[in-house]
Amino acid sequence: MDAMARPGEFELIARYFAPMAGEGSFSLRDDAALLEVASGHALVVTQDAVAAGIHFFGDDPPASIARKALRVNLSDLAAKGARPLAFSLALGLPADWREEWLAQFSMGLSGDCARYGVTLAGGDTFRVETGPVIAITAWGEVPAGKFASRGGAADGDDLYVTGTIGQSAIGLRVRTGELSFDSGGTIDQTLTSAYFEPEPPVFFSPAIAAHASGAIDISDGFAGDLAKLAHASAVDAQIRCSDIPLPGVDMRSKSLLAQALTGGDDYQILFTAPAASGAPLRAAAQKAGIRLTRLATVRAGSGAVSIVDDDGAELPLGRGA
Amino acid sequence: MDAMARPGEFELIARYFAPMAGEGSFSLRDDAALLEVASGHALVVTQDAVAAGIHFFGDDPPASIARKALRVNLSDLAAKGARPLAFSLALGLPADWREEWLAQFSMGLSGDCARYGVTLAGGDTFRVETGPVIAITAWGEVPAGKFASRGGAADGDDLYVTGTIGQSAIGLRVRTGELSFDSGGTIDQTLTSAYFEPEPPVFFSPAIAAHASGAIDISDGFAGDLAKLAHASAVDAQIRCSDIPLPGVDMRSKSLLAQALTGGDDYQILFTAPAASGAPLRAAAQKAGIRLTRLATVRAGSGAVSIVDDDGAELPLGRGA
Repeated sequence: MDAMARPGEFELIARYFAPMAGEGSFSLRDDAALLEVASGHALVVTQDAVAAGIHFFGDDPPASIARKALRVNLSDLAAKGARPLAFSLALGLPADWREEWLAQFSMGLSGDCARYGVTLAGGDTFRVETGPVIAITAWGEVPAGKFASRGGAADGDDLYVTGTIGQSAIGLRVRTGELSFDSGGTIDQTLTSAYFEPEPPVFFSPAIAAHASGAIDISDGFAGDLAKLAHASAVDAQIRCSDIPLPGVDMRSKSLLAQALTGGDDYQILFTAPAASGAPLRAAAQKAGIRLTRLATVRAGSGAVSIVDDDGAELPLGRGA
Repeated sequence: MDAMARPGEFELIARYFAPMAGEGSFSLRDDAALLEVASGHALVVTQDAVAAGIHFFGDDPPASIARKALRVNLSDLAAKGARPLAFSLALGLPADWREEWLAQFSMGLSGDCARYGVTLAGGDTFRVETGPVIAITAWGEVPAGKFASRGGAADGDDLYVTGTIGQSAIGLRVRTGELSFDSGGTIDQTLTSAYFEPEPPVFFSPAIAAHASGAIDISDGFAGDLAKLAHASAVDAQIRCSDIPLPGVDMRSKSLLAQALTGGDDYQILFTAPAASGAPLRAAAQKAGIRLTRLATVRAGSGAVSIVDDDGAELPLGRGA
């Protein structure tokens, strides 16, 4: 489609983005939006940005780029126990953007709006020299006093993780053609799809709000984010590697294992909760269709963490651990 | 400074951004922030992004880039009657970023935090192929029911504008060397400084909340934004050009005049208010040190706007009008 036939900013917003707009957004036609928060709740906000050539490939499916850009933010909210409400989108497009790209991008985004019950509150489309660049700010609400900070883990709490760790990091290597497990079959597809379209445990957030003492979104790698949680909470944790929910592929390669544990882009939740919360957490996970794994008991300490093999020897993970 | 000596993301945040962090931000060390809004108030949110090579020159002073990136957002809040509270910063840096640039950027931002009473709630530093790219999301609070939308102007209301129109658009041409009024003297400096560091009437926002029936932030050009306000409110307006507060330079050139009226980047407020609000609005403007100009009386209509000369002939403004 040539540039002359492309819609202007207002038409573009009306055609592709206004259908996702919610209450208080004035159909994206005003300078700002009004945000509402339910009585007895606090508003939680997060912002994460992604750029072509860095966080995604320019030729990745536009709908996947959109979903990932939104979900990395929903992941942060879920990790804090917040139910997502709305988001704002700053979309930087290069001079040669095509309407077809935008149509698919907005389709991906609007599918996720329906899936997660969020609306578009506003934003900005702007020109960039190289792009696209996508900066999303997302809001959610958490019952007052229930924000799950990184610093809340306490001596004797159980440490849990949602989902599977390392799929996305390994999936990226499948995507680039460095690795293949079944020549593009189900396993390869599961791994690359975890990279393209992470599935943060958004619907598990009420359980996080109700039970988590401390929590962190695993975006920078399991080992590194574990260290951040332990440091912020002043607790120590020792985890057996065989207890970590890893992808169902041969993980005997030390470099593959290290990549799974430090590679990042998991968008799962690592959290602690008192022992008494075990039963209700398992019930909530089952109800939400979330894989939940208990990893260890944390102890008051100085933020020391280690991941050990079945003989008790610490895994050398290099960066991130 | 070479890349090896640059701080990592966490050190960078601790050194340059944590000093601007406010309550609920967890010193920028968590996944998300908590937002508070005073009882009886609603939360207003806006997001605007700027990119190198498009909205600013790569060699513009970093402190000016920071101030403009923040102020274009504070302008949107002020136009809605909202007092600014906090903002979130997505800062995309190219691979060759220098710490000196960041030090000056954060200095500019932190000066504005103090000036406008806002704090940094969170955000994201990320890599871009070409940059910097800066996407700011800002929050403010407005007394419940007092959000000044674009659609609220009513028959018989007075139309006002804050500040001076066209300084920034002409200042950009001074910046690029196309124009000069006094060889880099006070006039040239005033104009370029309006381009580099707009001064939205942030402290006038309580008067907007108290009195404005309809309001819009003038960012895309006076004539075009006037048309948007009139269209959204279904009112007509005829303005005498000699009533518009233009820069104190020779504006007899038709192309210069058109540029002033359609060029954008003014970051002033165009708003309407009932006639009875005239006296309190003038008093509030004087108290806030804001230039306030009454332009016309709007009439119920279809969004028709015109800017006429002293003989009543309509100015041909081309795009934007």
